[in-house]
Amino acid sequence: MDTWNFWVVGGDARQVTLARSLREDGHTVHTYALERSGDPPCPANDLSGIGEAQCVVLPLPAVKGGRLNTPLSELALTAEQVLGALSPGTLVCGGRMDETLMAQGRALGLRMADYYAREELAVANAVPTGEGTIQIAMEELPVTLHGAKALILGAGRLGKVLAQQLQGLGVKVTVAARKWSDLAWIETWGCESVRSDDLHGHLGEYDLICNTVPTLLLDRPALSELKGGCLVIDLASAPGGVDFAAAQELGVKVIWALALPGKAAPVTAGRIVRDTIYHILTEEGI
Amino acid sequence: MDTWNFWVVGGDARQVTLARSLREDGHTVHTYALERSGDPPCPANDLSGIGEAQCVVLPLPAVKGGRLNTPLSELALTAEQVLGALSPGTLVCGGRMDETLMAQGRALGLRMADYYAREELAVANAVPTGEGTIQIAMEELPVTLHGAKALILGAGRLGKVLAQQLQGLGVKVTVAARKWSDLAWIETWGCESVRSDDLHGHLGEYDLICNTVPTLLLDRPALSELKGGCLVIDLASAPGGVDFAAAQELGVKVIWALALPGKAAPVTAGRIVRDTIYHILTEEGI
Amino acid sequence: MDTWNFWVVGGDARQVTLARSLREDGHTVHTYALERSGDPPCPANDLSGIGEAQCVVLPLPAVKGGRLNTPLSELALTAEQVLGALSPGTLVCGGRMDETLMAQGRALGLRMADYYAREELAVANAVPTGEGTIQIAMEELPVTLHGAKALILGAGRLGKVLAQQLQGLGVKVTVAARKWSDLAWIETWGCESVRSDDLHGHLGEYDLICNTVPTLLLDRPALSELKGGCLVIDLASAPGGVDFAAAQELGVKVIWALALPGKAAPVTAGRIVRDTIYHILTEEGI
Amino acid sequence: MDTWNFWVVGGDARQVTLARSLREDGHTVHTYALERSGDPPCPANDLSGIGEAQCVVLPLPAVKGGRLNTPLSELALTAEQVLGALSPGTLVCGGRMDETLMAQGRALGLRMADYYAREELAVANAVPTGEGTIQIAMEELPVTLHGAKALILGAGRLGKVLAQQLQGLGVKVTVAARKWSDLAWIETWGCESVRSDDLHGHLGEYDLICNTVPTLLLDRPALSELKGGCLVIDLASAPGGVDFAAAQELGVKVIWALALPGKAAPVTAGRIVRDTIYHILTEEGI
Repeated sequence: MDTWNFWVVGGDARQVTLARSLREDGHTVHTYALERSGDPPCPANDLSGIGEAQCVVLPLPAVKGGRLNTPLSELALTAEQVLGALSPGTLVCGGRMDETLMAQGRALGLRMADYYAREELAVANAVPTGEGTIQIAMEELPVTLHGAKALILGAGRLGKVLAQQLQGLGVKVTVAARKWSDLAWIETWGCESVRSDDLHGHLGEYDLICNTVPTLLLDRPALSELKGGCLVIDLASAPGGVDFAAAQELGVKVIWALALPGKAAPVTAGRIVRDTIYHILTEEGI
Repeated sequence: MDTWNFWVVGGDARQVTLARSLREDGHTVHTYALERSGDPPCPANDLSGIGEAQCVVLPLPAVKGGRLNTPLSELALTAEQVLGALSPGTLVCGGRMDETLMAQGRALGLRMADYYAREELAVANAVPTGEGTIQIAMEELPVTLHGAKALILGAGRLGKVLAQQLQGLGVKVTVAARKWSDLAWIETWGCESVRSDDLHGHLGEYDLICNTVPTLLLDRPALSELKGGCLVIDLASAPGGVDFAAAQELGVKVIWALALPGKAAPVTAGRIVRDTIYHILTEEGI
Repeated sequence: MDTWNFWVVGGDARQVTLARSLREDGHTVHTYALERSGDPPCPANDLSGIGEAQCVVLPLPAVKGGRLNTPLSELALTAEQVLGALSPGTLVCGGRMDETLMAQGRALGLRMADYYAREELAVANAVPTGEGTIQIAMEELPVTLHGAKALILGAGRLGKVLAQQLQGLGVKVTVAARKWSDLAWIETWGCESVRSDDLHGHLGEYDLICNTVPTLLLDRPALSELKGGCLVIDLASAPGGVDFAAAQELGVKVIWALALPGKAAPVTAGRIVRDTIYHILTEEGI
Repeated sequence: MDTWNFWVVGGDARQVTLARSLREDGHTVHTYALERSGDPPCPANDLSGIGEAQCVVLPLPAVKGGRLNTPLSELALTAEQVLGALSPGTLVCGGRMDETLMAQGRALGLRMADYYAREELAVANAVPTGEGTIQIAMEELPVTLHGAKALILGAGRLGKVLAQQLQGLGVKVTVAARKWSDLAWIETWGCESVRSDDLHGHLGEYDLICNTVPTLLLDRPALSELKGGCLVIDLASAPGGVDFAAAQELGVKVIWALALPGKAAPVTAGRIVRDTIYHILTEEGI
């Protein structure tokens, strides 16, 4: 592997981890706008020198409230300030960059890449998300996961990885999906499968329900079926998949768990971003 | 579930199994052109009565050498003879039906469905294919699979299922793929991953190599790297993924294993076709 | 299953869970000296009526500081008071009852059984202990367990179950043991094995070390080898298996985790005691 | 590891494999009475030179019909001839050596060790035995193991390993045992458990039954309960655990599979003997 000149600018603990991880791999790394993290690796005093960077890493999300997202810094930077200081041809990797930002960068002759849009990052993030879910379940449930019955709603990336992790702990796992091919996949994993349309009437047997789809599957009638003590963990991004008001009225405990990779395993989350950046570098031929 | 009137016409042992399996589910079943199977369930003497069928199941492949594929029958039937005897609106399910046959059927007002083109059948078939592969490996290798090192080429349906099955037996599994997202998937399964482009130089460590992609990955230079006694199982459809001539010269044992579901587990293979037909019936609203 | 008359006397949350669980199975259950638990099932006002019990369940440990162990009660009871109120032939099940107490009971014509001495309880308790360990590891480590390297010291009941659980989450597990047959077992589980005598020089590669043997394996030299951030969880009963003073000086994080079943999964822990009591009842022919 | 002077005398393909395997580890190896194997490594013309051996390996069983067990040789040797040619202090490792032979050797000042009596060999052999069982099941059953229901009789070494292997392939496994602690173990593996006494009335649901205990559990009444097509594999040494006559009358297919390690995986079987011999050498301080 070649070694490159990286600048890691703004963001939270994941950016610190990422910078450290890049240095361990032998790259030259500068950090900026991370000074409140206590221990930012190779902090730069200002943006002078960033013009020599081959790759600049912006946070996830890159921009927040019109400015660069810098929760660990006193500095108020705009994305334009950073982009404007770069040499044409520099690779800029950021998370959830909007079209305006992408266009600004391209107009400056920069190569813009959104690592959060990459499939391999989404796949890899399913592992820390699944483990974060299991940690919550272990903390909340008074029974062991071993021997418990769990229902996973959705057979996508997260449903797939979580099903495997729960099975690895001896959970009896059922997965709900719509498509026949997803139901066939679920059977190959050794789980029970159920069509999303056929859930009602069977929801009372589970100790744990994990939702991964941003559709209101756990509405009031569904929630009324759950047995006492059943824990619901909603992993779907807004608006989630649970009627939270009904759950509260019915006394169903629901935990809406978002952004688990950064919380449950920040070092792993940083490494996943790093690997994705390496893939982008390879593809860009840098 | 409703009960239907099925005719199962032509084909091999899988059709016999399928017919038996449909009867066990309570359907009315007639079989035709399966008389040499010894024990065809409810054999019909001729096609009279087939006009009342709600669903007719043709074999896989449906047509061979210009005639209906009837290896277990003395009868020489054309597909037209069967289709012509059906009532408009009848569902015809067959395997690998070509466009001409599909058009003929539609012109007669029939609903034509190719079960072999269904994703759920392909997914489900990966399980018997994987088991058939393991059976071959057990029969051929003088070492246990437990503790052996295996390389799977390809991370598609079969690569995925086979990786899981081999791991379940304690094999140390590496999977080769091209796409970053596939490599990320492989890591989530707990396997080692390797880029297809980086195989050379590492091929000498495996006891077993299973190829699932119809690309010539195991060419002469690759085969020369294998250690003595390494077994190669090629699961890719023609032209396969191995330079068979080179393998023979180099003394590498290669087994080209095709159509494993019907051979390794005919009853399961028949059930998979049955389930797929049920899905088609549901979607067609029959 | 027959139904019996149980009295559950003293103890903590596990006794409450146990009583509830016995009632769900249809038995007659009275509880005493559990009033501070808020919700003791069928609380008795005094010991009158206990003479009709067929089985009396004492806590774990049964006696503490010379009195019955009643942390959830204002009452100060001696074991003699309870035993003296029972009819001859009554089965008394308690945890860690000393020889004096056993002899007292037998002298009164009671059948005395220590459920904590039963092998099946020790085996079953390994599951909640293992899950409690995993929960701690997830809470403490900034990396995912998936892909992490863990070392388990000891291949007994807990080592065995924990190895399986960690592997189920994708951890790369090594287990250390002394006996050749244990090392052979470890290989059958698909883990790496290492002789306890050969640990030194290899300890620097682990992210997590779980000790299950009450022998000082993790002494100062061993602890000095660990890599930064390695987490040590000591599961061995007193005196543990870690030089805690040295660990503190060396900055190694050690968590000494005892009595995990009752903490991590009190309901499961209660059910395990219940099942063990059923076994005793069966064997006693009650 | 030090290197030693080995003589491998008599026996079948496992001895050939063992000799090859010892040579690969760098030891000096001589073979004798294996000439019909086609390719015995370093064949000796006669026993001259065996006096310098540090370790002599006899076959399994060592003696058959009053002579050394030499199925791959024209030579008719007695054990006395071999033992008499050795120097005092030489280690003699053999399989199933009877007390007479052990005493003869000791009288000559030899160190006698029976590797077949070692626990670690029995544990390690469970892996090839389990795989051999799975191979038979795959060859015989017309359904996939995935999704099939299997019953294992006995929770000893083989029952334990086979349960794990079958589960790894997606089999729904029930294990029958007598002791409460074994039943608790079975639950920790994630299998269903059943008491051996409670088998009757439930035997009709299995596709596969594997017996590991040399007790007549599968008597005529038990066999009459099996469903059509259920396969029975008896892995228990003589007299086995099946009423073979009744099975034949009832049309139940039973395969009595003995000595599977040498048949299913001779190279692995040879390595297991080799490892056991190394353990003996270590313990003997040679």
